Amino acid sequence: MSRVRTRLSSSPSEGVTLSGLLESLDGDSLVDGAVADAALVRAMLDVEAGLVRALERLGIVASGAGGAVTSALADLDVDPADLGRRAVTSGSPVVPLVADLRDAVPDDVRAAVHVGATSQDVLDTALMLCARRAMDPLQESLSRACEAASRLAAQHRSTPMLARTLGQPAQPTTFGLKAAGWFGGLEAARNRLAGVELAAQLGGAAGTLAAYGGRGLDALAVLADETGLADPGAPWHTERSRVHVLAAALAGVTVAAAKVATDVLLMAQAEVAEIGEGSPGGSSSMPHKRNPVESVLLVSAARRAPGLASAVLAAGVHEHERATGSWHAEWVPVRDLLRLAGGAAARVAHLLAGLEVDAAAMRRNLDAAGADVLVGVSLESHVVAAAAIADRVLTAAPARQGQP
Amino acid sequence: MSRVRTRLSSSPSEGVTLSGLLESLDGDSLVDGAVADAALVRAMLDVEAGLVRALERLGIVASGAGGAVTSALADLDVDPADLGRRAVTSGSPVVPLVADLRDAVPDDVRAAVHVGATSQDVLDTALMLCARRAMDPLQESLSRACEAASRLAAQHRSTPMLARTLGQPAQPTTFGLKAAGWFGGLEAARNRLAGVELAAQLGGAAGTLAAYGGRGLDALAVLADETGLADPGAPWHTERSRVHVLAAALAGVTVAAAKVATDVLLMAQAEVAEIGEGSPGGSSSMPHKRNPVESVLLVSAARRAPGLASAVLAAGVHEHERATGSWHAEWVPVRDLLRLAGGAAARVAHLLAGLEVDAAAMRRNLDAAGADVLVGVSLESHVVAAAAIADRVLTAAPARQGQP
Amino acid sequence: MSRVRTRLSSSPSEGVTLSGLLESLDGDSLVDGAVADAALVRAMLDVEAGLVRALERLGIVASGAGGAVTSALADLDVDPADLGRRAVTSGSPVVPLVADLRDAVPDDVRAAVHVGATSQDVLDTALMLCARRAMDPLQESLSRACEAASRLAAQHRSTPMLARTLGQPAQPTTFGLKAAGWFGGLEAARNRLAGVELAAQLGGAAGTLAAYGGRGLDALAVLADETGLADPGAPWHTERSRVHVLAAALAGVTVAAAKVATDVLLMAQAEVAEIGEGSPGGSSSMPHKRNPVESVLLVSAARRAPGLASAVLAAGVHEHERATGSWHAEWVPVRDLLRLAGGAAARVAHLLAGLEVDAAAMRRNLDAAGADVLVGVSLESHVVAAAAIADRVLTAAPARQGQP
Amino acid sequence: MSRVRTRLSSSPSEGVTLSGLLESLDGDSLVDGAVADAALVRAMLDVEAGLVRALERLGIVASGAGGAVTSALADLDVDPADLGRRAVTSGSPVVPLVADLRDAVPDDVRAAVHVGATSQDVLDTALMLCARRAMDPLQESLSRACEAASRLAAQHRSTPMLARTLGQPAQPTTFGLKAAGWFGGLEAARNRLAGVELAAQLGGAAGTLAAYGGRGLDALAVLADETGLADPGAPWHTERSRVHVLAAALAGVTVAAAKVATDVLLMAQAEVAEIGEGSPGGSSSMPHKRNPVESVLLVSAARRAPGLASAVLAAGVHEHERATGSWHAEWVPVRDLLRLAGGAAARVAHLLAGLEVDAAAMRRNLDAAGADVLVGVSLESHVVAAAAIADRVLTAAPARQGQP
Repeated sequence: MSRVRTRLSSSPSEGVTLSGLLESLDGDSLVDGAVADAALVRAMLDVEAGLVRALERLGIVASGAGGAVTSALADLDVDPADLGRRAVTSGSPVVPLVADLRDAVPDDVRAAVHVGATSQDVLDTALMLCARRAMDPLQESLSRACEAASRLAAQHRSTPMLARTLGQPAQPTTFGLKAAGWFGGLEAARNRLAGVELAAQLGGAAGTLAAYGGRGLDALAVLADETGLADPGAPWHTERSRVHVLAAALAGVTVAAAKVATDVLLMAQAEVAEIGEGSPGGSSSMPHKRNPVESVLLVSAARRAPGLASAVLAAGVHEHERATGSWHAEWVPVRDLLRLAGGAAARVAHLLAGLEVDAAAMRRNLDAAGADVLVGVSLESHVVAAAAIADRVLTAAPARQGQP
Repeated sequence: MSRVRTRLSSSPSEGVTLSGLLESLDGDSLVDGAVADAALVRAMLDVEAGLVRALERLGIVASGAGGAVTSALADLDVDPADLGRRAVTSGSPVVPLVADLRDAVPDDVRAAVHVGATSQDVLDTALMLCARRAMDPLQESLSRACEAASRLAAQHRSTPMLARTLGQPAQPTTFGLKAAGWFGGLEAARNRLAGVELAAQLGGAAGTLAAYGGRGLDALAVLADETGLADPGAPWHTERSRVHVLAAALAGVTVAAAKVATDVLLMAQAEVAEIGEGSPGGSSSMPHKRNPVESVLLVSAARRAPGLASAVLAAGVHEHERATGSWHAEWVPVRDLLRLAGGAAARVAHLLAGLEVDAAAMRRNLDAAGADVLVGVSLESHVVAAAAIADRVLTAAPARQGQP
Repeated sequence: MSRVRTRLSSSPSEGVTLSGLLESLDGDSLVDGAVADAALVRAMLDVEAGLVRALERLGIVASGAGGAVTSALADLDVDPADLGRRAVTSGSPVVPLVADLRDAVPDDVRAAVHVGATSQDVLDTALMLCARRAMDPLQESLSRACEAASRLAAQHRSTPMLARTLGQPAQPTTFGLKAAGWFGGLEAARNRLAGVELAAQLGGAAGTLAAYGGRGLDALAVLADETGLADPGAPWHTERSRVHVLAAALAGVTVAAAKVATDVLLMAQAEVAEIGEGSPGGSSSMPHKRNPVESVLLVSAARRAPGLASAVLAAGVHEHERATGSWHAEWVPVRDLLRLAGGAAARVAHLLAGLEVDAAAMRRNLDAAGADVLVGVSLESHVVAAAAIADRVLTAAPARQGQP
Repeated sequence: MSRVRTRLSSSPSEGVTLSGLLESLDGDSLVDGAVADAALVRAMLDVEAGLVRALERLGIVASGAGGAVTSALADLDVDPADLGRRAVTSGSPVVPLVADLRDAVPDDVRAAVHVGATSQDVLDTALMLCARRAMDPLQESLSRACEAASRLAAQHRSTPMLARTLGQPAQPTTFGLKAAGWFGGLEAARNRLAGVELAAQLGGAAGTLAAYGGRGLDALAVLADETGLADPGAPWHTERSRVHVLAAALAGVTVAAAKVATDVLLMAQAEVAEIGEGSPGGSSSMPHKRNPVESVLLVSAARRAPGLASAVLAAGVHEHERATGSWHAEWVPVRDLLRLAGGAAARVAHLLAGLEVDAAAMRRNLDAAGADVLVGVSLESHVVAAAAIADRVLTAAPARQGQP
């Protein structure tokens, strides 16, 4: 058995490092930067420091402890790989981190570190903080995507094209309405995401906040204030609906982006030739290829996200006062969803901004479908009808378009 | 090849009928009644009639047509099994239904039936109508569950018990706080579900509403009014986020209910013996068994729901102006989720109302854990801290508790 | 609380009946007939009768009991809906069924019914029996699909067409190779399914078969023989890998069929026009539509199956000697997967047999892609290369093609 | 728009590096080492070198080219992070890698590099090679786990304990039979995994292998030989069932391991106290905690795996001759499943080897359940019956137990 023990206690660091070979294709550097290992370590340090400041405000720890710990942790350099290795025995990176913190702070404030908190408090709040920090670039990308779709819709307000249903010619529509539909989906995803409550978590060892005497809920509220997260009102260590709502909204971003990509892929087919990516990719074997790489990667993201969201939900029931596995199962899928949504948002914004639209080809394909598709209505009337709906979609949320 | 053709055109009705052998275990009769085949046929008829009334209000069809069609369809008896069989060739039950409707209405209003609409409009709106009708019993069950959990929390406000984290004794808590946690999860699920927009859908053949001249968006708004659904502002035939949000919220109901069930199953173990179901089930082989059947079925529902929700999301990208498969893929999972959520809500309400709580056993198990779990704080202080959090959870949403 | 109890004890039958309105679109009447409610009741009766015969062979029950019970159950008419209602209190349809059986058999053999067995034994074995009975039509459909694909591959062995990678023109291939690829996927799915072990289950109340004295494993082996299922060697009440393997293989059938459908949908686009379904469907709003309905429904099945398979796997861990929910969670998804795979197999066989192939259009699209796609190799050489691979795919499994 | 372009073209490396902070908890260092970024780069280099050797054997490239390229690539140092960054424009790490290779090899063999192959050939084969290399430690861990379970079963062949069904006392069993059940599940997972065909892939740009004249299938066979993978007979660029079978088998490993963990968690509860982990973990807030960390992490893995397997299956349909997103969607989930399965196998082997079993506590809990659970059979008879089944489970596969 010695061999088993040896392997588990040995350093897994050489093997486990994922340096970006595949991950670079998923994501957006700003969102990745907000959630990757270094950022998560930073977030955990920020939570620990924020907790000391919160407890100082409540008079639970000594005056000055908050500032002293915050200063000590500001420049603390923790190696994520090493922390990961040391996390194996306790199943939580917070346990070795707290040991490091106690070493790093001045002697007189050591006792103020991690008072009344448990690992889950720190990691839950840190993950929410990462999500909070990822939201800015993510929302910004979605806003740019919405603007680009909106601009296409305006430019092609009266560009007729063939609508296809179940893969077959249906009736005329406009490219403007199609682009407005993309806008609508992206905007709905953006608003849904904006509505997710990203809250601090503090429950203490058993969810009772007993260590704070009568000040437990105050500690939670002040921790929320210190970390810039929402005050959930009460601990949510085993009530995970916030995490489920976040995961579902992130998966929704990938789906809204993949709707654009899927339509682009179909319109970019050689026989259809209505649209082209602005930055097509090359091939290792065929010099003539102009691959719609951004669309392909967007579709890929939307194929992966539902399984990740279902994993989060399948880990949704947390036993008693801390789950026996389901909490741990949330971490990686939630982070992967943040990365996939961040990448999808940035990529679809770029794709939309660079699209090359061939209105003549759209007209040619429409004409080739014959008069049947007009179903007795003039083409102009079809165009007017489509434009009216596009106008509604675009103007339904005017105030929101200018938001970051 | 003749055999192939024969089989596909033959009646599948004998085989496909699912009469409730397994389905009875999933659900709640009221929710099932709102979404099952007969109800879905009724909803489709209601949508078709509502559309004629809407078009009459807009002057698009003749005056009186709305009332005439509504009357004609009020008593129309459509066999769901037969309709299902006839749906195979078009892939949609609406195609044969419209043929039936045109036969069923008076000659002079025949031309007013299904004007400007497409199959997806009718089926999407009908499924939303079924969801709308399922919401009343579903919300009512959730309210009863919340009330029952709240009552338990109040009754056991100061009943100490052992909190368990990662499956092991942690610190003292109260059964009142555990019950308050159940309340919090159920209430969050209820509020999340209440926030889902259930909207009418009308886009016409290609999503342009071209058949209505300039009145397309008005037609959508008035159809929403006639069917009692929300006006989405624009067609959502390929923007499916409403469906995703609904599916995720329904899955969330099963998870919140399964949290209660999982804790009950753990506390009902013979060696723990802190709780018992009020209506345990029997065994085919062991007369002494008192199986926690309601909890088992609640856990089962939460095992199934994430996969269904992921299927809806995996079918989230709808190509062009009507999907080539992903729309059809939504129907059954969404209905299954409505049924599972409906059953989970009713069952957890019943479970909570009947729970038999043994406060003495809770105390015994707590005492057996020894003084270590007190971590230097008096038991009384632990209880006071837990009660304070429970109070917050229960009172954070006082206005909502009285809602249906 | 009286209302709660009333609802749960009231008849859910009106609501829960799924008469085939949506289910007719999923499936194949023969597979549906092998797994739907009436068939599952019949399978449970067959298992109970087979168990008595098995125990008679082992001398555990009286001589003659097997025949007497088999006769009594042969014509027993059990209403599945009623059984479903009565199953709610125990969480298992076997509990009320056993009560019915004991009433239905002659007095002198009553004691021989269900001896030593538990609900799970009967339901697990009955579901495996349903799967066994569904395999014949399912395999027959897959064989017909393989034959039809093979025939297309032979007919179009040298029909050049454009290969598309990442949605863009790549190089020449043949339609024969494309069809051979379909064959290869369907054949792999067929062989994978054929390799699934469908085994009887018998473990008794606790998995020890204690009621049979030293004859427990013999009882399992003889039950397998009586029911025509494989002898698993030992009870598998909590070792569910057979169920996972079955679910995964069934999902694989839907994926292999959807590969055909997806290519057909792409080639059937008006601008590509290389292929058409033999039996296209109509529209409720557009008379000119020729919808590729079979392909659409095949894609739909493959969108739903992964979620169902993941639900079975997410319910894969069965606690102690019988799961607290995960066993119950398997039943419906496994049945749905059987139905979806059965429908996909029959439908893809029909689709392939009726495909209308336009070789001239294939050539036209290939020529339109220009000389770049030849990458310096003659078209004839491309065709010869493609044909060689198609030949290999088709002949790699010659013995298997003639199988039922 | 400049900002968009800037961001996408900027280095994402700082953010995307996952250095092991969370990943260390998932895995096993040997399996991680076989599949992580550095290993995948090495595998791609090995495939490119193997291809040149294969083509040399067939006389397609010049004599000596294989050796020269192999030597040149043996020490080539490619930075995975840099490669990932450069992969973004083409959507494939193979495109920039081939450019590097052509720079790295001697001028006279440059033309022999990557002849006739496409990116997918190299990446598919490289991922299979990683899987092949991961199989040795994975199978070795599973063998150790099986041995440890088998040893427990032998040691406790006659140790009576209470069987629990649906969470409640059922009848007596033995701990030996429980351990034999764990063995059976682990062994089934091991055999299932051993049966997965890990094959080379070579199809060329369009799946016709046209660049090799008439030697395409020979090239595939020889490449398989050079890489030590199976010869699939024909290209499988769009026939992905091997990948699905692999993913499902890997998920099955996590489930089999989590069955052990779940039973351990239940038996390790303070009130049950029948078992303890050999290396329990500590807590950041409660010094008295002895957390069953290995079991918790095993359950976590099994919560995540079904979603990953469903993502692979949801990406199962590959359009035309190379998918528009679904191929890309496979890479990360398959690698994650290899890592999770590798970690689960190593961890369950360690858990089983260190388990502390309290036979007296098992007897105490059994006795406390009372005489009802004996259902009229002597305890000794129950034990004998359980032991007979355990013996069967353990001896059914005697030859396999000694395998690596």
